[in-house]
Amino acid sequence: MSLLCVRVKKAKLQGPPDKFNTYVTLKVQNVKSTTVAVRGDQPCWEQDFMFEISRLDLGLIVEVWNKGLIWDTLVGTVWIALKAIHQSDEEGPGEWSTLEAEVVMKHDEICGTKNPTPHKILLDTRFELPFALS
Amino acid sequence: MSLLCVRVKKAKLQGPPDKFNTYVTLKVQNVKSTTVAVRGDQPCWEQDFMFEISRLDLGLIVEVWNKGLIWDTLVGTVWIALKAIHQSDEEGPGEWSTLEAEVVMKHDEICGTKNPTPHKILLDTRFELPFALS
Repeated sequence: MSLLCVRVKKAKLQGPPDKFNTYVTLKVQNVKSTTVAVRGDQPCWEQDFMFEISRLDLGLIVEVWNKGLIWDTLVGTVWIALKAIHQSDEEGPGEWSTLEAEVVMKHDEICGTKNPTPHKILLDTRFELPFALS
Repeated sequence: MSLLCVRVKKAKLQGPPDKFNTYVTLKVQNVKSTTVAVRGDQPCWEQDFMFEISRLDLGLIVEVWNKGLIWDTLVGTVWIALKAIHQSDEEGPGEWSTLEAEVVMKHDEICGTKNPTPHKILLDTRFELPFALS
């Protein structure tokens, strides 16, 4: 069992600032975490999340949703292969990812995304080291 | 453009009542609506939702999530083909569906679900008639 740590930092969205009131959902295996909703085209969430991971062949699904009165609209999605996430016991500066409009599936599981949007998100992802050597 | 009306009525969940604090998300195309969270193994939401539908070849994805302190856990999911939803200008008694553990994909889109859980949900789905004849 590995401990995945994700810090949802901020996003740069294209469009009128008053159009956006966005939140981020993180999904992995059958669990999900959600940030608060933040207004504007440069939302800053700076929220930390943790997941216990048993299958490293899957991915982390990040979705940015724009909160509406009746329904929420998908701004874009990022899929990060768990295998590609480094091990570290320290937070990092994060990495910018382009939000894509659609997911790509293989054998009933998400394996990527396609159709880039103009929106970007800054995420810091890492696997906690099993124990600290001092 | 068709108007899809969904009433999320209630569910019967298997397990200790104090284990559950569940909410339902409805997703179709790239929009999503969410009920409030309700406690217990027989949650009663009775909430109405509406969606504007442009593509009748897709489906309505219903997910039941159990709200947790750190993360939410998927209780089960139902996929309803939009083509299978009847037209009506009146609410009905709804239909019980078994919640399944996983979705089935085809060409990067959900086309069904598999692996039934012991949980069930009661939903009333209908397309609003284009106009009333009187």
